[in-house]
Amino acid sequence: MSEFNNVTVVREANVYFDGKVTSRTVVFEDGAKKTLGMMLAGEYSFNTGLAELMEVIGGEMDVLLPGSTHWITVKAGESFDVPAHSKFDLVGKDFADYCCSYIEG
Amino acid sequence: MSEFNNVTVVREANVYFDGKVTSRTVVFEDGAKKTLGMMLAGEYSFNTGLAELMEVIGGEMDVLLPGSTHWITVKAGESFDVPAHSKFDLVGKDFADYCCSYIEG
Repeated sequence: MSEFNNVTVVREANVYFDGKVTSRTVVFEDGAKKTLGMMLAGEYSFNTGLAELMEVIGGEMDVLLPGSTHWITVKAGESFDVPAHSKFDLVGKDFADYCCSYIEG
Repeated sequence: MSEFNNVTVVREANVYFDGKVTSRTVVFEDGAKKTLGMMLAGEYSFNTGLAELMEVIGGEMDVLLPGSTHWITVKAGESFDVPAHSKFDLVGKDFADYCCSYIEG
């Protein structure tokens, strides 16, 4: 178990796909932003603004990165990078607990 | 939109009912603890340790409080109290965003 200290948390959840993907926004002292999220079983497409580092905390997800035709399975403790201004696809068979870090250009 | 400032957030989610109810633990400077949670459609029973103040942030849930035979609908902006060491039942038709505060005796 790990913690983020001295942070601000937005009370209201971010809700996507009828609640099958939800997250909470965490803002750090230096202004950096992460979301802590939960993805339930399903197929999802997301568009990025900033680049993202996606860390899978629990469970697993299948990921199709932009420009790739090869799905990869990302498990707890593993991560993947998504470029800014791109689209990526996710498939969850069960639930996946994740942390998404937004990377300023 | 509101925020919790200068808090600690546990990175790993609390997962109940195969992920249909999940939450993140937030600890305040004075040691007070809340969870920010998401409840998807379904029927759930929870047991309390400490007393709880449940605030519905988004969506709604139907609640059967301990000792009651009358379901109440609790909507965004509303809340209910649950005694310590008791059991309460929830029914969600859609998703409900909530904040649960744990009240030390």
